[in-house]
Amino acid sequence: MSTRLVDLVRVELDRFLSERQSQLAEIAPELAPFSDFATELLSGGKRFRALFCYWGWQAVIGSETSFDPLEDAAAHRDRDSVVLAASALEIFHAAALVHDDIMDRSDTRRGMPAAHRRFESMHRDGGWLGTPEHFGTSSALLLGDLLLGWSDELFDIGLTTLSSTDASRAARSEFHRMRTEVTMGQYLDVLEESTWPLRDPGELMERAHRVIVYKSAKYSVEAPLAIGGSLGGASIAQLAALREFGLPLGIAYQLRDDVLGVFGDSALTGKPSGDDLREGKSTVLVATARTRLPEPVRRTLDELLGDPELDDAQIAMLQSAIRDCGALDAVEELIERAVHEAIATLESTPLSRQAKSQLSRLAESVVTRTA
Amino acid sequence: MSTRLVDLVRVELDRFLSERQSQLAEIAPELAPFSDFATELLSGGKRFRALFCYWGWQAVIGSETSFDPLEDAAAHRDRDSVVLAASALEIFHAAALVHDDIMDRSDTRRGMPAAHRRFESMHRDGGWLGTPEHFGTSSALLLGDLLLGWSDELFDIGLTTLSSTDASRAARSEFHRMRTEVTMGQYLDVLEESTWPLRDPGELMERAHRVIVYKSAKYSVEAPLAIGGSLGGASIAQLAALREFGLPLGIAYQLRDDVLGVFGDSALTGKPSGDDLREGKSTVLVATARTRLPEPVRRTLDELLGDPELDDAQIAMLQSAIRDCGALDAVEELIERAVHEAIATLESTPLSRQAKSQLSRLAESVVTRTA
Repeated sequence: MSTRLVDLVRVELDRFLSERQSQLAEIAPELAPFSDFATELLSGGKRFRALFCYWGWQAVIGSETSFDPLEDAAAHRDRDSVVLAASALEIFHAAALVHDDIMDRSDTRRGMPAAHRRFESMHRDGGWLGTPEHFGTSSALLLGDLLLGWSDELFDIGLTTLSSTDASRAARSEFHRMRTEVTMGQYLDVLEESTWPLRDPGELMERAHRVIVYKSAKYSVEAPLAIGGSLGGASIAQLAALREFGLPLGIAYQLRDDVLGVFGDSALTGKPSGDDLREGKSTVLVATARTRLPEPVRRTLDELLGDPELDDAQIAMLQSAIRDCGALDAVEELIERAVHEAIATLESTPLSRQAKSQLSRLAESVVTRTA
Repeated sequence: MSTRLVDLVRVELDRFLSERQSQLAEIAPELAPFSDFATELLSGGKRFRALFCYWGWQAVIGSETSFDPLEDAAAHRDRDSVVLAASALEIFHAAALVHDDIMDRSDTRRGMPAAHRRFESMHRDGGWLGTPEHFGTSSALLLGDLLLGWSDELFDIGLTTLSSTDASRAARSEFHRMRTEVTMGQYLDVLEESTWPLRDPGELMERAHRVIVYKSAKYSVEAPLAIGGSLGGASIAQLAALREFGLPLGIAYQLRDDVLGVFGDSALTGKPSGDDLREGKSTVLVATARTRLPEPVRRTLDELLGDPELDDAQIAMLQSAIRDCGALDAVEELIERAVHEAIATLESTPLSRQAKSQLSRLAESVVTRTA
């Protein structure tokens, strides 16, 4: 099913985006870049959020499968609802990426120029008034806003066909909470990047952890699971079980992202290698390195971190320093421990057996990924 | 009622924002600026969107007032729903303003520093890393995103208590449409600012009109009326009537805004006088002036338009030119005609008498406003 889910999500996204394309074309032909960029951005990605949403649902409803044909029809419609909600999470994520790339001044996303850079190029090619940079930022800001609205719209379409009103309300409430938490997690991330040298060094690890929890662990894993579970009418115990599994797995997910941000293969990640170093991200990996590096090397790291002009040799030097001091191994161990912690929570939870085994497999794939 | 509505909206906004403030405080104490800025921003404003939403509802349900006590209780709950939805429109508008001020690089909003400038000051005062400008932009971008989510959340709370599911779906669908249309209207506005000298001068008026329709007329008047009407379970004929009234009134609303953007009293508008000239907005007022000004004056206008450094003397000179060539009078006449057109549509519409007279009064207040 998990392969098929990815296909179903793709079909729903294509259908939704092609309807939106017509709507934009009716307003003005100049809006074509918005549907084009949205479609290209949403054709890629790992769809982890959609998968977690689906398996959160499955984990809850799987335990009470019914053989009544009438209830089966309802379960079928509910499955459609879940696919739509899962697709909506992918649109929300695309919106977050577009805005994130403005904030991080990233040049590329999923192997293509970032949205703001594409709008910049349009401006430059047309020889328009004002600066290409400002036009790019404004237009990408609006693309993100558009996608935020669309994600909500598709989520809504999904809920409309859900058989239980209570489940629909619970899912919406999880969706609202997710949006607030990830947006504030993003701010905490921006804030850490701007203030970390002014903080007590002893607090850096805890602060990096807080960013991970809100910006990533809850958003990428825990919330999609909770939304899916809510769509299935999860009991309080079932929701708690999904969260207990989701939070450590989400932390592992982000730690893997941090490792890929420093050591990732750009051919696989679609981002330049060492990008997090150029962006000066204060990650757990970097915080660990700072506590382990000898003083002069730590100073060099602090000086170079966040310099957008870092060249390949400097990146390679920082990569070696982070590896040689044992920080990489330490983070790999954290990842492994967090994944085991997540999987261990599944043993005694009130979730379906099939879902437990699927959630374990998903957990493994999340942390062994290379992109 | 219309004064009371403004108070009710205020109460609901305060209640909602104070709950959100607690939610943010639980995440991290550093998030206080988000609830503070949101609260201050939402304490001001003319609440026109909330008023139109309420009177759109009233216009529809007023025609079938019931004296059945049970139905009365339902009507009471519905009124609460409408107030919440109306308040949600005000939050959406606050989000749009925060993002708009980033795009327009505005320094002030509602007489206070714009959100991105406030975050800039925090950065500057703290002596943080990176540039204050980039930190300001990123943080305000996130504040806007947060408010977008919150508006949706409050809209949702409103719909939950609405007695009719059909009405609730119809209202959501209008809300979705509004968001897409205004976001794309904003882009068309940004696009015109960047490309107007490259367009056929004969097209400028039509292009400026298109921006007005999507960015403002539909958003500020037509959509709130349609959302309110939908909340009341409007028939197709009633919705059409609200739209026919709303669109010309919305155009008048924006033309008044354009006049205030060039000639407004900064003490009343909370924006510097002549702000639209510094921002280079290609409004109907400016497009009219361009067709009427003698060639050398038109060239001066074109050169100065969009220069953020324009001084008071230059602003005064441009104001005189726009007034003396008759463009101001021409736009005032357009405003008057559009308002009359709007009010005339009310005569034979299937809306309640009380609402018709209230809508007429609102129409007058919209276009005679000085801020």
